[in-house]
Amino acid sequence: MVYKEGDGLLTEKFDNLVKQLRVLPGVGQKTAQRMALHLLNGKRPQGSALAQALDIAMHGIIECQQCHSFSDDEVCPICLDPRRDDSVLCVVETAADVMAIEQSAGYRGRYFVLGGHLSPLDGINADDLNIDQLVNRVKATPVEELILATSTTVEGQTTAHFISEAVRRHVGKVTRIAQGIPMGGELEYLDSMTLSQALQNRS
Amino acid sequence: MVYKEGDGLLTEKFDNLVKQLRVLPGVGQKTAQRMALHLLNGKRPQGSALAQALDIAMHGIIECQQCHSFSDDEVCPICLDPRRDDSVLCVVETAADVMAIEQSAGYRGRYFVLGGHLSPLDGINADDLNIDQLVNRVKATPVEELILATSTTVEGQTTAHFISEAVRRHVGKVTRIAQGIPMGGELEYLDSMTLSQALQNRS
Repeated sequence: MVYKEGDGLLTEKFDNLVKQLRVLPGVGQKTAQRMALHLLNGKRPQGSALAQALDIAMHGIIECQQCHSFSDDEVCPICLDPRRDDSVLCVVETAADVMAIEQSAGYRGRYFVLGGHLSPLDGINADDLNIDQLVNRVKATPVEELILATSTTVEGQTTAHFISEAVRRHVGKVTRIAQGIPMGGELEYLDSMTLSQALQNRS
Repeated sequence: MVYKEGDGLLTEKFDNLVKQLRVLPGVGQKTAQRMALHLLNGKRPQGSALAQALDIAMHGIIECQQCHSFSDDEVCPICLDPRRDDSVLCVVETAADVMAIEQSAGYRGRYFVLGGHLSPLDGINADDLNIDQLVNRVKATPVEELILATSTTVEGQTTAHFISEAVRRHVGKVTRIAQGIPMGGELEYLDSMTLSQALQNRS
């Protein structure tokens, strides 16, 4: 007889901790057990600190009223930052994308988070994204350039095209994040779509 | 400029969550970010449940007064279980070992957790382990067989030998968990120590 899901491990509190840890992405039964034991064996203060941070984050992180990214307050630090360039607005799918672009540190304009991409097959239409809010945003506060930084999947491309049509009359110019060969990419291992795009967009 | 540890990511609450998640074993900066985003994007109730389970476990899981494994109450469910065989006592290093043996489901006796192994170089001597308690335990409640299931490292072997000497006068017999070739093991890839042990202990 081997371990079956649902069997008790050690104690009720331990079993529940293991079960709840499995909500984390990439964490299965064995990893969850290892995490629980690691915390219980001499990392209890850190475990309590994690519990508190989780609780605060789950209840306290809200959506920024301006850019719809994650925020502790009504308006996020990036929207409040006076050193940011108001004339450029970068449209991304999720708050994770904001974080990725911020970490590359090559951008000093503002952001706008759509909350996903158009995907009619999954039932995600224009009404489910913050597209109306985006149009209102560029109507109320004019921007010179709107950068479409949605992903380069079919859905991301469709979303970019849709938004481009919706805002074209209200902004100076609409640009699309560059597609091409990633840094360190070897030509022979790249897919032909990327390669043909990279050749077309040569500069 | 790329991301440096200590930089802010999105918001204070988010950054703190990412920082605290890194206490989990095998979780680095990127994985912690992914976990935090995963919970914030539509898994908030589960995140709150995890926070609660963590908090309860960190404060509520104590050491069983009898076997020194993890327990929710003064005495753990295994020590309380009347169907367990009182005549056999299995001595292990940690509560994780109890869990591993329980999951193999081949053992129905009692357990005793030492709390580690002897390691003079790391300053862990007999006084730092529950060895006195073990001797008192077998003096108070006689057992027919004491199984030494410490690990098969040098420290584990030394610990087993030390305990064997300490309890020999008080128990019927002292046995050592079998050493040999693991299930599915291929001879050519095994280390020579295991192989020579397996040959010596042939049955």
